[in-house]
Amino acid sequence: MTDLLRREPHIISAGLGLLADAATAQAARVSRVDWAPPLPGVEAALASVVADPRRGAANRLAVERMLAARALLVDVLPASQALGLTAGEFLHAGPPVTWDLASGPLRGAIMGAAALEGLVTDPEAAGALAERGSITLEPCHSRSAVGPMAGVVSPSMWVFAVEDPATGHRTYCSLNEGLGTVLRYGAYSPEVIGRLRWMSAVLGPLLQAAVRSHGPVDVTAILAQMVQMGDEAHNRNRTGTLMLLRDLLPSMVTSPFRSSQVADAAAFIGGNDHFFLNLAMPACKLAMDAARDIPGATVVVAMARNGTDFGIQVSGTGTQWFTGPALTPQGLFLGGYGQQDASPDIGDSAITETAGLGGFAMAAAPAIARLVGGSAASALATTQRMYEITLAEHPLFVIPALDFRGVPAGIDVTLVARTGILPQINTGIAGRLAGTGQVGAGLVTPPAEAFSAALSALANSVPARR
Amino acid sequence: MTDLLRREPHIISAGLGLLADAATAQAARVSRVDWAPPLPGVEAALASVVADPRRGAANRLAVERMLAARALLVDVLPASQALGLTAGEFLHAGPPVTWDLASGPLRGAIMGAAALEGLVTDPEAAGALAERGSITLEPCHSRSAVGPMAGVVSPSMWVFAVEDPATGHRTYCSLNEGLGTVLRYGAYSPEVIGRLRWMSAVLGPLLQAAVRSHGPVDVTAILAQMVQMGDEAHNRNRTGTLMLLRDLLPSMVTSPFRSSQVADAAAFIGGNDHFFLNLAMPACKLAMDAARDIPGATVVVAMARNGTDFGIQVSGTGTQWFTGPALTPQGLFLGGYGQQDASPDIGDSAITETAGLGGFAMAAAPAIARLVGGSAASALATTQRMYEITLAEHPLFVIPALDFRGVPAGIDVTLVARTGILPQINTGIAGRLAGTGQVGAGLVTPPAEAFSAALSALANSVPARR
Repeated sequence: MTDLLRREPHIISAGLGLLADAATAQAARVSRVDWAPPLPGVEAALASVVADPRRGAANRLAVERMLAARALLVDVLPASQALGLTAGEFLHAGPPVTWDLASGPLRGAIMGAAALEGLVTDPEAAGALAERGSITLEPCHSRSAVGPMAGVVSPSMWVFAVEDPATGHRTYCSLNEGLGTVLRYGAYSPEVIGRLRWMSAVLGPLLQAAVRSHGPVDVTAILAQMVQMGDEAHNRNRTGTLMLLRDLLPSMVTSPFRSSQVADAAAFIGGNDHFFLNLAMPACKLAMDAARDIPGATVVVAMARNGTDFGIQVSGTGTQWFTGPALTPQGLFLGGYGQQDASPDIGDSAITETAGLGGFAMAAAPAIARLVGGSAASALATTQRMYEITLAEHPLFVIPALDFRGVPAGIDVTLVARTGILPQINTGIAGRLAGTGQVGAGLVTPPAEAFSAALSALANSVPARR
Repeated sequence: MTDLLRREPHIISAGLGLLADAATAQAARVSRVDWAPPLPGVEAALASVVADPRRGAANRLAVERMLAARALLVDVLPASQALGLTAGEFLHAGPPVTWDLASGPLRGAIMGAAALEGLVTDPEAAGALAERGSITLEPCHSRSAVGPMAGVVSPSMWVFAVEDPATGHRTYCSLNEGLGTVLRYGAYSPEVIGRLRWMSAVLGPLLQAAVRSHGPVDVTAILAQMVQMGDEAHNRNRTGTLMLLRDLLPSMVTSPFRSSQVADAAAFIGGNDHFFLNLAMPACKLAMDAARDIPGATVVVAMARNGTDFGIQVSGTGTQWFTGPALTPQGLFLGGYGQQDASPDIGDSAITETAGLGGFAMAAAPAIARLVGGSAASALATTQRMYEITLAEHPLFVIPALDFRGVPAGIDVTLVARTGILPQINTGIAGRLAGTGQVGAGLVTPPAEAFSAALSALANSVPARR
């Protein structure tokens, strides 16, 4: 002890840099330890979940199943047929929500879908319909589906069916409408409804014919290539879209459809860099569904938002949603829009981050910085930070800029709780008011409450010691 | 001086690290300066070219014209029509060469082309024809064209016509045949000839119809996007190919061609990741042609190889070739092939490096490392090294991994001579023997002699002082 005071002091500083900065300014020797406090109030739950003897093996199994999942596009079908939706039933993104609590973009999308289905002539009349209970709302996730942004799926829309050949499990997602004034961003103008009618009348049936004649399209293989070609499969799906078009095109051309219809469809898909998103999402859901329902596993299997709440589901706690108020993304805005026009976070597309893509794979897509803000360096730093809260590196989705290291995949609730690092999501931003459409793109995280709540439920599920 | 000896020594070491390593090992303070000796024997010529009063302004003009060039795909035509080739006339890659000195892959390609043109029935008979002078050989570059690998163009082959809208200048390149057993790698089997016949009978005319109906395709815009999507436009043209297909497809579908022909063409293009190379090359040639013929300019405007010699052309010295023996690429080999099977460097495709793409843009395409050898880190280092010998950063071709810095473009003969740093080319590797085809892909540089010879000619062109 006497000796300690005589020696030159070597200060080790954990967490915030204030002390370290002050000591450094006085020429002291300082080593900084990267440490952050856990989420507030989780200590007891964290201790009991971490001590759960099932956890190690359960998470290993969850990760193994997630990484083994493969996604094939096997069919394109009307939602009525694929998902059993009947008149007046609408799916939406995120955890459950009622009309009175629904966000602007979700309301706008339901209004447009009600007009598409012929329940109302004027979309503005849909509100009254909803208020008297003639419209049923249900999360996409509850029917093995996912939907970007508002995520509204109604019976006459067509959906991709994606299947894991090893298990036969299928997931579904609507067809992507393009950017700007589109239903999933809450717009419901006649142009929006007209496009959706064409998608149901021509695009869906043509893609069905092409997929059935071509045979299954390997969505996982396309995802693996995309990540080496600047896409992160959430807000950049450029090469994915091009590869899908390449694969289906010969079968589209030789289908019985008129060449003008084939040309229109090819131009529509080719003109929409986001078209593949609606295949990336169900592929990610397939992988995360494979990791579901393992007692004791603390892996997040879904993150989804409805514009009001952000919800997560965890492998060890079944289909229970753990929610908190959705945050509002910060980002870059289109035209005259600004932060004040932004809806809180919305969409099932955070399933990509749940599976290690999107914000988690931003190092593979530095050009995303020009869309959502930040720099190539910050994109790299984001991916590197996500390794802190994930259990695995995906062997198929490798990042050239990190010398082919796999993306960080498999978010562990205990790692989030212990480090306070929240999953990084990149996202489109919908206008706050129904009818607006897209206003920008940016970055957002889940609310910490969702993870605290999940941790409590996991703690309650730990078997009592005998 | 006395004081100097009393103080702690601080050693500054330039160039090789031997002295610095030894001094460091003795705990001396060492600063290393990154310095390399100039090319051997160039000191006098270098001094006189560097002192040329025209040089600064001439190079600025050359760079300005190079960077301002834009390339549009405006037509697809038979080579007889576009290049005025007549029976028995063959273009080839690289500087001029005669049959007796021609490399294996160049001979193989001429043999196949002679069969394609009906000059011989058996390709093996073409040698005798060439030996008695019935075949005329001329570099592609002498007819505003470029050709990958052997680069053989014969009258009945179809070529892309690429035009700079500001100047009306056009350049040309054959259609890409795919990989493996193909004419440009020196193969001439019946399969090779059959494919070429289909390309002349169906693919060329169909693409002509599509381009004429679609209107000009902006090749420069595709190049700019590719570089942000993992392509370096020499040995990775994946996204470029997909974008071209996307752009032309609707016009292909609505063309008068049969749907089976359209489907075949779409599958052929979509199945060949290198298809866009043959548009990247003439686009790069357009840019470099714009920088030609400026007295006093020391910018390299062409690098090309014929499997025997490597030649360069320089802005200030017209169409004169400066050559040295082509080196043999080092790289990764297909199947059972190895380094001993490799032909010396061949092809006009080094026009991509001349314009700042290919090896110069490898930082944009780290996945190339898996094709040509090396790592993501070495790809980054290669691009960074090329800034040492170039005059500009291309504002349209920006590298996400370098935070959107432009690719190094505009090789300056004096910078190469002074630093001894040779341009880095990445390349396919042809089999040494005629008829083999591709054996691998790898890395190569020009022979230093080509730059020494160019520097001497530039020195001789410096106006005498009055």
